[in-house]
Amino acid sequence: MAEQVFPTDSLATLRAHLGVLPSSDEIAEAAARDRQANLTKPLGALGRLEELAVFMAGWQGTARPRIIRAQAVVFAGNHGVCAQGVNPFPQEVTAQMVANFRAGGAAINQLCRASGAELSVVALELDRPTGDFTQGLAMNEADLLEALARGAEAVDPAADVLLLGEMGIGNSTVAAALAHATFGGTAVDWVGRGTGADDAGVMRKLAAVEAGIKRHAALLDDPFTTLMAFGGREQAAICGAVLAARFLRIPVLLDGFICTAAAAVLARLEGDALAHCIVSHASAELGHCRMLVHLGKAPILDLNMRLGEGSGAAVALSVLRAALEAHNGMATFAEAGVSGA
Amino acid sequence: MAEQVFPTDSLATLRAHLGVLPSSDEIAEAAARDRQANLTKPLGALGRLEELAVFMAGWQGTARPRIIRAQAVVFAGNHGVCAQGVNPFPQEVTAQMVANFRAGGAAINQLCRASGAELSVVALELDRPTGDFTQGLAMNEADLLEALARGAEAVDPAADVLLLGEMGIGNSTVAAALAHATFGGTAVDWVGRGTGADDAGVMRKLAAVEAGIKRHAALLDDPFTTLMAFGGREQAAICGAVLAARFLRIPVLLDGFICTAAAAVLARLEGDALAHCIVSHASAELGHCRMLVHLGKAPILDLNMRLGEGSGAAVALSVLRAALEAHNGMATFAEAGVSGA
Repeated sequence: MAEQVFPTDSLATLRAHLGVLPSSDEIAEAAARDRQANLTKPLGALGRLEELAVFMAGWQGTARPRIIRAQAVVFAGNHGVCAQGVNPFPQEVTAQMVANFRAGGAAINQLCRASGAELSVVALELDRPTGDFTQGLAMNEADLLEALARGAEAVDPAADVLLLGEMGIGNSTVAAALAHATFGGTAVDWVGRGTGADDAGVMRKLAAVEAGIKRHAALLDDPFTTLMAFGGREQAAICGAVLAARFLRIPVLLDGFICTAAAAVLARLEGDALAHCIVSHASAELGHCRMLVHLGKAPILDLNMRLGEGSGAAVALSVLRAALEAHNGMATFAEAGVSGA
Repeated sequence: MAEQVFPTDSLATLRAHLGVLPSSDEIAEAAARDRQANLTKPLGALGRLEELAVFMAGWQGTARPRIIRAQAVVFAGNHGVCAQGVNPFPQEVTAQMVANFRAGGAAINQLCRASGAELSVVALELDRPTGDFTQGLAMNEADLLEALARGAEAVDPAADVLLLGEMGIGNSTVAAALAHATFGGTAVDWVGRGTGADDAGVMRKLAAVEAGIKRHAALLDDPFTTLMAFGGREQAAICGAVLAARFLRIPVLLDGFICTAAAAVLARLEGDALAHCIVSHASAELGHCRMLVHLGKAPILDLNMRLGEGSGAAVALSVLRAALEAHNGMATFAEAGVSGA
């Protein structure tokens, strides 16, 4: 466990700490850009790979960014809003899938092995679901602070990149509510089929999100009270991990709809709290692309995936590795004796 | 070198041989689809990864397709049409880049290392450029057959997947002409900036393609005479490799604009000659997306790349590997004791 990189004893002290978020190292970025201009290829011909190398340089603070240790963390939680019939799977599946992660049988295990990420799973009080947000707060302040701390503690300060994912039956409904609270619009803009809701299930999700937004209208101006309103623990933990990574200057690969919706509540903080985050892929879930437009972030991949678990982040890690291999390993025009244009 | 998988002593015998292209193994595909339905995830939640696993199963003829040996081949050639001033780089760069490939300093070397592909480079008579297609045929029948044979011979029958790429100063002009001949439209639909042509350079490319299409109008009903009209050797070699892979039932990752344009001439053969080919990425080059629409192929990646060399295929290989890791390594619902929906 890392030592704590920001205070979680109260929201007031946390808020005070968040006024001074570290920013990207512009000198390292410029040096990386300069290197890209001299590699044996037309400038810009590696497209997004070049941008990713420069991004990594900025956050790692070096012209030659590297990924030795890629850390993937999946946070799992349970949700009181499942009482509204928002998910076709029974809630025990969250714990069953955590067991599957630990046994190595889930998609994320295979995808992390394929791209060389070290996976850990943080189960957050699965036997104590958050409150049903249609009936009251999902979490009180103590619950929120605890989940933020669990997220922050999970981040290895030695990681070169952090992949975030989640598991939690019912959490696409929570994500829709968070996105609605953060970006406005209507429930229809943010509610989708999730793991496979039928039409009636989608109607129940819509009704739950609308009821929650109406009930908690007074809390939605602020990221932290928004998290208290809707939960869940894994969403708060993702926010904690994103903030910890920022203070540690570790670049982050967010996963899809639910992970992005969680992190997106922080976008309303000052200083572009998500500047060190890349969205790994465009989810098939309705609303994710809309979220990306609001955030001004282009996904690395678009593979029609909608699994969560950090699965998109694990696949995107390979692209990031490719970007750095090219950046660090290519010869310059001078080194290779290749004529420029 | 492989023994020859199709005859290249004359176009007539080659054409006769191409009437019977092998097709995908539907039983293996169905078995792979069945496995996907039982893995611990909502069906379809891995999106394109699931489709890729089923595709690989069909061509490898097994429910559990694997990639032990990924072979990447870059074909290089020179082009008489450079006399028309279609490229800002001097033509010697083709040989210089081949030397860079062999010394390990190019993008493709790093990207192949990152995704675990074994790279070979086939330089095709670089000191004997094809004819300037605005003035006459790029290649005679003997040149074409030789290049097809070189392409076919380069394919390792033991490869589990084949990545194809190219290098050749001026070859985005050749690609535009091939696409124009294959798919119709006008030169403007297919000509782009390539490695970095300025506006005047683009005008010269347009003029060259228009002149070539006009001059060779009588030859453009057929893939092979189209290749003779415009070249180049690396394009013909790509066609030879694609056909050899088909007879060997090796799935193929095509690269971007130039590689796809080369293979696309085969799309007019009977029996969907490109059924075993995936387009790795959508190139930033104008015209590639148009080509993909004509071919009905969705790219795996869209990273604004436009380098060639097989660079997009090398990055896409990681996604393909991820698809197979998930397909082969995941637990089923029954194995993991996870409740279904």
